[in-house]
Amino acid sequence: MRADRLVTMSQPVDSAVSAVRTYIARHRAAFLDELAEWLRIPSVSAQPDHTTDVRRSADWLAARLQETGFPTAEVWETPGAPAVFAEWPCDDPEAPTVLVYGHHDVQPAAREDGWDSEPFEPVIRENRLYARGAADDKGQVFFHTLGVRAHLAATGRTAPAVHLKLLIEGEEESGSPHFRALVQEHAQRLAADVVIVSDTSMWSEDTPTVCTGMRGLAECEIRLYGPDQDIHSGAFGGAVPNPATAAARLVAALHDEQERVAVPGFYDGIVELTDRERALFAELPFDEQGWLREAKSHATHGEFGHTTLERIWARPTAEVNGIGGGYQGPGSKTIIPSSALLKLSFRLVAGQDPDRIEKAVRDWAAEQVPAGIRYEISFGAATRPCLTPLDHPALQSVVRAMGRAFDKPVGFTRVGGSGPAADLEEVLGAPVLFLGISVPSDGWHAPNEKVELDLLLKGVETTAYLWSDLAENWRHAP
Amino acid sequence: MRADRLVTMSQPVDSAVSAVRTYIARHRAAFLDELAEWLRIPSVSAQPDHTTDVRRSADWLAARLQETGFPTAEVWETPGAPAVFAEWPCDDPEAPTVLVYGHHDVQPAAREDGWDSEPFEPVIRENRLYARGAADDKGQVFFHTLGVRAHLAATGRTAPAVHLKLLIEGEEESGSPHFRALVQEHAQRLAADVVIVSDTSMWSEDTPTVCTGMRGLAECEIRLYGPDQDIHSGAFGGAVPNPATAAARLVAALHDEQERVAVPGFYDGIVELTDRERALFAELPFDEQGWLREAKSHATHGEFGHTTLERIWARPTAEVNGIGGGYQGPGSKTIIPSSALLKLSFRLVAGQDPDRIEKAVRDWAAEQVPAGIRYEISFGAATRPCLTPLDHPALQSVVRAMGRAFDKPVGFTRVGGSGPAADLEEVLGAPVLFLGISVPSDGWHAPNEKVELDLLLKGVETTAYLWSDLAENWRHAP
Repeated sequence: MRADRLVTMSQPVDSAVSAVRTYIARHRAAFLDELAEWLRIPSVSAQPDHTTDVRRSADWLAARLQETGFPTAEVWETPGAPAVFAEWPCDDPEAPTVLVYGHHDVQPAAREDGWDSEPFEPVIRENRLYARGAADDKGQVFFHTLGVRAHLAATGRTAPAVHLKLLIEGEEESGSPHFRALVQEHAQRLAADVVIVSDTSMWSEDTPTVCTGMRGLAECEIRLYGPDQDIHSGAFGGAVPNPATAAARLVAALHDEQERVAVPGFYDGIVELTDRERALFAELPFDEQGWLREAKSHATHGEFGHTTLERIWARPTAEVNGIGGGYQGPGSKTIIPSSALLKLSFRLVAGQDPDRIEKAVRDWAAEQVPAGIRYEISFGAATRPCLTPLDHPALQSVVRAMGRAFDKPVGFTRVGGSGPAADLEEVLGAPVLFLGISVPSDGWHAPNEKVELDLLLKGVETTAYLWSDLAENWRHAP
Repeated sequence: MRADRLVTMSQPVDSAVSAVRTYIARHRAAFLDELAEWLRIPSVSAQPDHTTDVRRSADWLAARLQETGFPTAEVWETPGAPAVFAEWPCDDPEAPTVLVYGHHDVQPAAREDGWDSEPFEPVIRENRLYARGAADDKGQVFFHTLGVRAHLAATGRTAPAVHLKLLIEGEEESGSPHFRALVQEHAQRLAADVVIVSDTSMWSEDTPTVCTGMRGLAECEIRLYGPDQDIHSGAFGGAVPNPATAAARLVAALHDEQERVAVPGFYDGIVELTDRERALFAELPFDEQGWLREAKSHATHGEFGHTTLERIWARPTAEVNGIGGGYQGPGSKTIIPSSALLKLSFRLVAGQDPDRIEKAVRDWAAEQVPAGIRYEISFGAATRPCLTPLDHPALQSVVRAMGRAFDKPVGFTRVGGSGPAADLEEVLGAPVLFLGISVPSDGWHAPNEKVELDLLLKGVETTAYLWSDLAENWRHAP
């Protein structure tokens, strides 16, 4: 990676930096003790016997945020697990408003899954903190507490330089079923100029990056019906339409010979990668063989004219998640099946609207399915894509703050997956940035989840600079 | 159907005919009593608790064939259920040898499946005999006993005019797992100039037909492997090959835009329909809407340039019997599946060799499956197609005999399915003809299976003429 191609504001260590670092060093031990206390609460949202633990986790966090200095720290009820909201207004009403998003629930974990220590008994080994939730997401939520204190200590302020809000949900690991409604219900109190999501990873220990967007998602199920029951392929084979064949032909028609999605209108209006973004992606130290190992795959394959990183981060896709029809057991059964099933998902990029995509796919299916085959098509709840342009002032602030903390050039990534952050962008009308200090080896959802302590404290340090930088460089546009 | 387009030897009732009919009328009651006795034996080969019944059925038949006059009538053991072999040589060593094939085992049946009477308690209602096996296949085997006696009575012979052999297997309803080995083991004793299979249907009560061939079958399973485990379609989607997509593309590539099978070499060497056969098919009183109801389908569809009857009887096919991969349960799962499965079957027509088809499909799959997808392809036991040309002298004899018995023009059909008869053609090197007097409404494999008594006796009558006609018109070619 050539530094001159990356946005960076790496600077000599100035007095603010040394004040921040001194403050963090002094409070490091207490900070880690408190985080460990939180990590001991097994707030597994997917398991009903942990319902009270998820509530304890919310209560614990709200109390801690009050201790930190947030004048407002509330537990917000949902039909499921509670969220935590906190607010610390700036004394300057013109300062921008920042909403930090994270979650306090965790994935299930049990020692026998392959953990080297109890998942809810945090331990530090070789400068890493091991516990379920250490990286996903309690560690990344919690760095904001010490971060805002360091920001105050270094600046001599009594309130942050921005209007600071936190929304920490309790059902992210269960698919955020009530999140959108929660955001809609409290849209006024959540109103912000920018959303900072701290629930992602950066490129690697050595390569700090900020994520600028994530793909959206539209999911579709198509059921195709041929004969009213399975019929004999000898007696009738070759003379009536076969719904399994029709399903397969739909899948084959999903892409053209350049592996572009062949649904008419699919690419209409998409925000194309700029040359600068393509160049920045290309300069990330990407190890394709290592990535293939992580993908447990044996070749790369996708839309012509794009690199693997472009394909997973910035290009929309159509994938078959499931296909079925007829006899799938051992041996053979000479039938024409009566029905077949397709589960498709479309990853979307900025400029694609899930409603328009749904209509395009419905029109395409109506065109493709042959006479004699009846079909039903249905769509699940969709997730919108989100993307913040590289030249957005808030993104520049994040890059500068991160650059100071890491003392390194900061690169840009995106996320191929989809998440509730897009609801925040859509409902609140605010751009979303992803400030994550986890790394791919942290073992999210896996045994021996950990967080690198050095990186965790870089997260603290980043936010200590970030609020000042935002306030300085970006005034609230009323 | 215009009679002048059909091969027919309809004649005025001559003295031979009246002798045969008189004999049959006199022995009708005893014949039906004996058949009913046989039908009371529940010789269900697929159900282990009927093992002794299948053996009883074989013993019963062998004894009855001896009573009929066959000098040889033996029970032949197999690793499964026993078959029955009988032989009645002609006194003229130059006479042709005929091997009749049928089976004495039956499908399972229980009153509660929807039978109006006990399936193994034969009853006659409205000139129909109801019982499991009445049409499939005990009735059609048993007409040969009275038939040969009527033949002798009408001709004054003491032995049939042909060397007559019967092979009645006991595992047809269980897939004939030991049949080919049995035929190979006894190939010398089974040697014949022509094989007559009595285990099929004719067009309808009003349209007597003889079947001239059946399609072969090659079955194939393809397993496709992508990632080593299911992977996240957000993190990796669009950048690695998806085995479900690869499976679907294979299926889509099976046919060209004319719905011809697109596997290179698939049609090499096939015996095309002659104009005469196409014309004869076209003159059958085919009711496409009624056929669609029977197929429980909502449209016809198949190889361009061919009628439905041509498609199911005389054209080879490729059908998907099963397809599967990824998530098929309720809701959604955003994965790229690690594997997918295809079960394909190919119906073959005369001129297609299953071994050559297997090689063609293997070559085609190797060509089609993309890089990064590993696959395994396997083929099950294949069944060869068989076809007897319209001008074959034995076929002419069957048509004349049937025409005399029914006093009507006789049409030609084929069978779309596949069966063990092809083993007889291949192992014995003899052409196979299908002399069946069942009709599509007889309810094979269904509740209330029955045989039309008038048609059953037409079967008796047909064979009474057939052996004389064959002996007269077709000398054994040594």
